[in-house]
Amino acid sequence: MQHFEQDLDAFKQELLTMASRARTAVTKAMRALVEREDAAAEDVKREDDAIDQLEMDIDERAVGLLSKAPLASQLRLITVAMKINTNLERVGDEATTIARRAIELNREPQLKPYIDLPRMAGMAMEMMDEALDSFVRGEPARAAAVVPRDKQVDELNRQLHRELSSYMVERPDTISRCLNLMVISKSLERIADHAANIAEEVVYLYEARDIRHPGATAPAEETGRPSPRA
Amino acid sequence: MQHFEQDLDAFKQELLTMASRARTAVTKAMRALVEREDAAAEDVKREDDAIDQLEMDIDERAVGLLSKAPLASQLRLITVAMKINTNLERVGDEATTIARRAIELNREPQLKPYIDLPRMAGMAMEMMDEALDSFVRGEPARAAAVVPRDKQVDELNRQLHRELSSYMVERPDTISRCLNLMVISKSLERIADHAANIAEEVVYLYEARDIRHPGATAPAEETGRPSPRA
Repeated sequence: MQHFEQDLDAFKQELLTMASRARTAVTKAMRALVEREDAAAEDVKREDDAIDQLEMDIDERAVGLLSKAPLASQLRLITVAMKINTNLERVGDEATTIARRAIELNREPQLKPYIDLPRMAGMAMEMMDEALDSFVRGEPARAAAVVPRDKQVDELNRQLHRELSSYMVERPDTISRCLNLMVISKSLERIADHAANIAEEVVYLYEARDIRHPGATAPAEETGRPSPRA
Repeated sequence: MQHFEQDLDAFKQELLTMASRARTAVTKAMRALVEREDAAAEDVKREDDAIDQLEMDIDERAVGLLSKAPLASQLRLITVAMKINTNLERVGDEATTIARRAIELNREPQLKPYIDLPRMAGMAMEMMDEALDSFVRGEPARAAAVVPRDKQVDELNRQLHRELSSYMVERPDTISRCLNLMVISKSLERIADHAANIAEEVVYLYEARDIRHPGATAPAEETGRPSPRA
């Protein structure tokens, strides 16, 4: 039992490493954009393979742990960790998308100072940090507070989308740059989505109620494991 | 044991219901676009709540089954089913995106006959069907053949994106329509991604090798469950 708890701790640690790598990828991708540093973008693209590999390792370890978990609460923790893992891998993918678009944008003159995009990135990453921290500390209330913040990032994305659309009409020569900026904005919005997903999983884990789809009734069924394999 | 097998079959059946609903949502969303039927789009938006609810039910049932699964192979099957479930829910989300954009497009004259988009939708749905069928029949080779087809849909998306970009430059009055078409194209590309993800999970399930990220080395570790709780 002691041994299993240690394995579980090591597993959680690996998930946090995954989170930290995904986060670094986003930061670097934004640096590639804002500082116009292609080298940072190339780093992100390379690093994505390592993140993918880590995702698979974590999944494999999770399946191994599932087969040994004595308690229903541990089973739930492991399945939630697998979902968090998937979301983190997708954050890495979005960082790669941002990096690729940054490289394209860096080939042309900058359209205007980047203000909204770094702000969205900051908000999305704060959400990620909060969600993961509440996972580690077992604080569902804090996680629940993360979820609605997704709407602010959505709104910024919609606003930027509208602005860029009108700009394209006025200046068709900027269309390709505007499209790249729209993709980056959408990627940041998706990163915030992933953070909100993670937060929802944390609430589900510690409160055993499903807030992923508000409006739908949460399943009440209890999932007790019969008894510790005796 | 007999009882558990029955539960597992019922669980698989529920996953197939989920797949069928997600598929119907995509078909209807495409009808909303091609036939310019707003009512079909409204259906898709309403149906999305039911799909979300089903996703949660399946997840809940999965966690319950995990706590009773006697064999490592069953544990793996259940975790793979959970991942398929997540992908199907996202397919439903993409269908909703397509439906929303179709409603916007239906308010203006049609830009040109839709040829590539229905083709992409057809390819993506064939991929979904194949992936799910290979899951049900336990045919990893068939599932493996689905994965590379994703590239064709990617290519169509890129091509359409290029065409629409140039069109926008020539005729700035069509920009908002072109943007809506780009979003739909991207959604279809993502549906194909989800189908490929499902196919990869099926390969992983039946061959216990991870092909999700080619180039990364697959973990070799065996995850044998100690023995049927005796």
